[in-house]
Amino acid sequence: MVAVTIWNEFRHEREDEDAAAVYPDGIHGTIAEALVDRGHEVRTATLDEPEHGLTEDVLAETDVLCWWGHTAHDEVSDDIVDRVHERVLGGMGLVVLHSGHYAKIFKRLMGTTCSLQWREDGGTERLWVVDPGHPIADGLDESIELPETEMYGEPFDVPEPDRLVFTSWFEGGEVFRSGCCYRRGSGRIFYFRPGHETYPIYEHDAIQQVLDNAVEWASPVEGAPRSFGERE
Amino acid sequence: MVAVTIWNEFRHEREDEDAAAVYPDGIHGTIAEALVDRGHEVRTATLDEPEHGLTEDVLAETDVLCWWGHTAHDEVSDDIVDRVHERVLGGMGLVVLHSGHYAKIFKRLMGTTCSLQWREDGGTERLWVVDPGHPIADGLDESIELPETEMYGEPFDVPEPDRLVFTSWFEGGEVFRSGCCYRRGSGRIFYFRPGHETYPIYEHDAIQQVLDNAVEWASPVEGAPRSFGERE
Amino acid sequence: MVAVTIWNEFRHEREDEDAAAVYPDGIHGTIAEALVDRGHEVRTATLDEPEHGLTEDVLAETDVLCWWGHTAHDEVSDDIVDRVHERVLGGMGLVVLHSGHYAKIFKRLMGTTCSLQWREDGGTERLWVVDPGHPIADGLDESIELPETEMYGEPFDVPEPDRLVFTSWFEGGEVFRSGCCYRRGSGRIFYFRPGHETYPIYEHDAIQQVLDNAVEWASPVEGAPRSFGERE
Amino acid sequence: MVAVTIWNEFRHEREDEDAAAVYPDGIHGTIAEALVDRGHEVRTATLDEPEHGLTEDVLAETDVLCWWGHTAHDEVSDDIVDRVHERVLGGMGLVVLHSGHYAKIFKRLMGTTCSLQWREDGGTERLWVVDPGHPIADGLDESIELPETEMYGEPFDVPEPDRLVFTSWFEGGEVFRSGCCYRRGSGRIFYFRPGHETYPIYEHDAIQQVLDNAVEWASPVEGAPRSFGERE
Repeated sequence: MVAVTIWNEFRHEREDEDAAAVYPDGIHGTIAEALVDRGHEVRTATLDEPEHGLTEDVLAETDVLCWWGHTAHDEVSDDIVDRVHERVLGGMGLVVLHSGHYAKIFKRLMGTTCSLQWREDGGTERLWVVDPGHPIADGLDESIELPETEMYGEPFDVPEPDRLVFTSWFEGGEVFRSGCCYRRGSGRIFYFRPGHETYPIYEHDAIQQVLDNAVEWASPVEGAPRSFGERE
Repeated sequence: MVAVTIWNEFRHEREDEDAAAVYPDGIHGTIAEALVDRGHEVRTATLDEPEHGLTEDVLAETDVLCWWGHTAHDEVSDDIVDRVHERVLGGMGLVVLHSGHYAKIFKRLMGTTCSLQWREDGGTERLWVVDPGHPIADGLDESIELPETEMYGEPFDVPEPDRLVFTSWFEGGEVFRSGCCYRRGSGRIFYFRPGHETYPIYEHDAIQQVLDNAVEWASPVEGAPRSFGERE
Repeated sequence: MVAVTIWNEFRHEREDEDAAAVYPDGIHGTIAEALVDRGHEVRTATLDEPEHGLTEDVLAETDVLCWWGHTAHDEVSDDIVDRVHERVLGGMGLVVLHSGHYAKIFKRLMGTTCSLQWREDGGTERLWVVDPGHPIADGLDESIELPETEMYGEPFDVPEPDRLVFTSWFEGGEVFRSGCCYRRGSGRIFYFRPGHETYPIYEHDAIQQVLDNAVEWASPVEGAPRSFGERE
Repeated sequence: MVAVTIWNEFRHEREDEDAAAVYPDGIHGTIAEALVDRGHEVRTATLDEPEHGLTEDVLAETDVLCWWGHTAHDEVSDDIVDRVHERVLGGMGLVVLHSGHYAKIFKRLMGTTCSLQWREDGGTERLWVVDPGHPIADGLDESIELPETEMYGEPFDVPEPDRLVFTSWFEGGEVFRSGCCYRRGSGRIFYFRPGHETYPIYEHDAIQQVLDNAVEWASPVEGAPRSFGERE
């Protein structure tokens, strides 16, 4: 049982009919339900709440934060990014989803542009498990097939992952490192590609299994430092 | 609770007075007691038993194998090395101790000479935790001090570790990467430097804590493949 | 200018009509010509020569060894594998090609099974450059397309690469980490997937460019140790 | 021959007698002379120049930027940090020296606090080459001894280095990962610990050799992307 906070920008689902049809309760709602069903303690937070829903209290009680954003990365306040950053370095796990690759918090942690290629074509994606010995791959088949997705292609400008768990094949001819593990400070970070706002990706059973595994994997390690700093 | 098998060459303690005085029940006996006290299920195996005590049945019931050897690496049969190798790639953890850096199984897994510099001088060693966010560092202070040890110095000819947990400082002026994590196949491997046969290193509480943490860390991941191979 | 030795098993091209038609001078002949054209000093060696053509003298004068083998890995003598292994750890570069993933020398250096999935279907492969900042990618477009290849699929049981340069997309729906960099001892190792015996892969200009880049990258580093060992 | 720009905060040497005595022409002056002697094309830049001396033109003509800062990290303008950051991702090498671990540009690239322990005690430091096969170790002995230094101790809160070249031993009982290699985007980054303002560290021949090797290693790779970004 992991204490998860799911952060969602929550704009598409309120402003765009297609997104609302796929995620009537928001992307966060669908992910929350999936993780509650798998036994986690889940809360949600969204961009337009005060402090984006990420108060000191909320973060203090969060083991792993999931992050979905897309159209409004710039509206996330730098103060909140600082706060989340500090908590990740202090051991809180972070699972960054899909277009969250351009979130301020992810770019802050990676130190690179996090750019990639993309094409919204509704083609098939197949995520191959390239590291079947990794806990995030537990319970999965050799690959996960998603019938309709937005394509993300290489080069993906991130630091070489500590460990690469998934690589995606796209019908249109591209590949992408779609499941990347990092550690920064005491915190574990997992970038997971799937999840466009107009495809019901987060309803997919195997994708939910990955999210379940990822929050387990990213949860804080006992005894790890809550902060780093000088000590003369 | 991890099912641990502690393998010991068990020659020094039967042939050398100094070693017998420090480890009357063998190095394996001391480590076994420490791990039993910490709640693990422990068995031991030694070089001079049939199949070196590492039968198919024993390995099948072993989550993590600890390995201590020194003077008789060449007497370990290649068939048993093959068997252990296959089990490690299939997910069994391996904790290699001290002079085990030259064990056939470690060299097989690393692919390098695993050579290092050394001097038996009984000086002080201080193991610094360089990765306090790692589970193997759980419950430790910032360093572990061992009043009398054999020195191991760099360069240590191993592949760059996936993660470096400890670095040793030696009174005589050397340093050593003394806690190195690797994965090969589904198996987790931890090399841990401390442990000479004539110093009571394995009686040290913090060293026992590291061994406890290491067998937890190295235990098999649920769902990881038990073997690798072709599938046309 | 790098002193390259191209080792080829050289059985298919003498025993199989299709292979002979594609590589009338042997796979080594085609690669040699390509590297000579690009300014390297090249010699070749094959399985059925005395000492497999890899005498002490030949290896002493070799900066980078390229290795292609497939049907006769077991016929490579362990003594020669020991010799090559020692030279790689001492700084000689090694470029392992295609089915060479099962070569004794590659398995010795990796410590894993090096297994993978495969299907001989003549489909299209597209190699994407996932690390455009790497010297092995110099002068390439964003991807290399090979119209007819044998498929290799994940999981590829190798240690996590130090750096991943290429990932392949296959028409049939698979992906593969097809350009993997490692260091062992002082030696640089590059595994490069393309190269079946019945497709003219090594005639492809971009593939030749990769081989050129790879032998430059893998050539010995000035000042690196020629051997590792104890020094009390 | 590498086009090097040496950036120095240049405050201690103008405000503090001890520093002025050791580095009458500034730390940048001493390093510049050493690199010119070794055949590089060198310019310098300092904090109090317009744009800190790091104009677009200067950076465009710089292959590798060396960075020394200590008391005035906060005075470096964010705009210049953005500019340097973009150039590093686009391939310019960066060599970060000593107290530069807290420079904005280093923290930006690492994504962590970059904190460490320290003590100004004038004790001896010995830098051990832990990766003798690395080009930055070319021409060095097995260790470099510095008779008087400020101590830096672990834990050093940086991402696990891509490759660790040096580890320091300190007379007072500490260790430190003192030579760390990273890549971000197309850029190579080397953090090198030695270099306090009141000890003549940069006059030391072996330290100058490391700087020479480091600027060679960090210089841009031919063909690497000058920028990253989307391409629909």
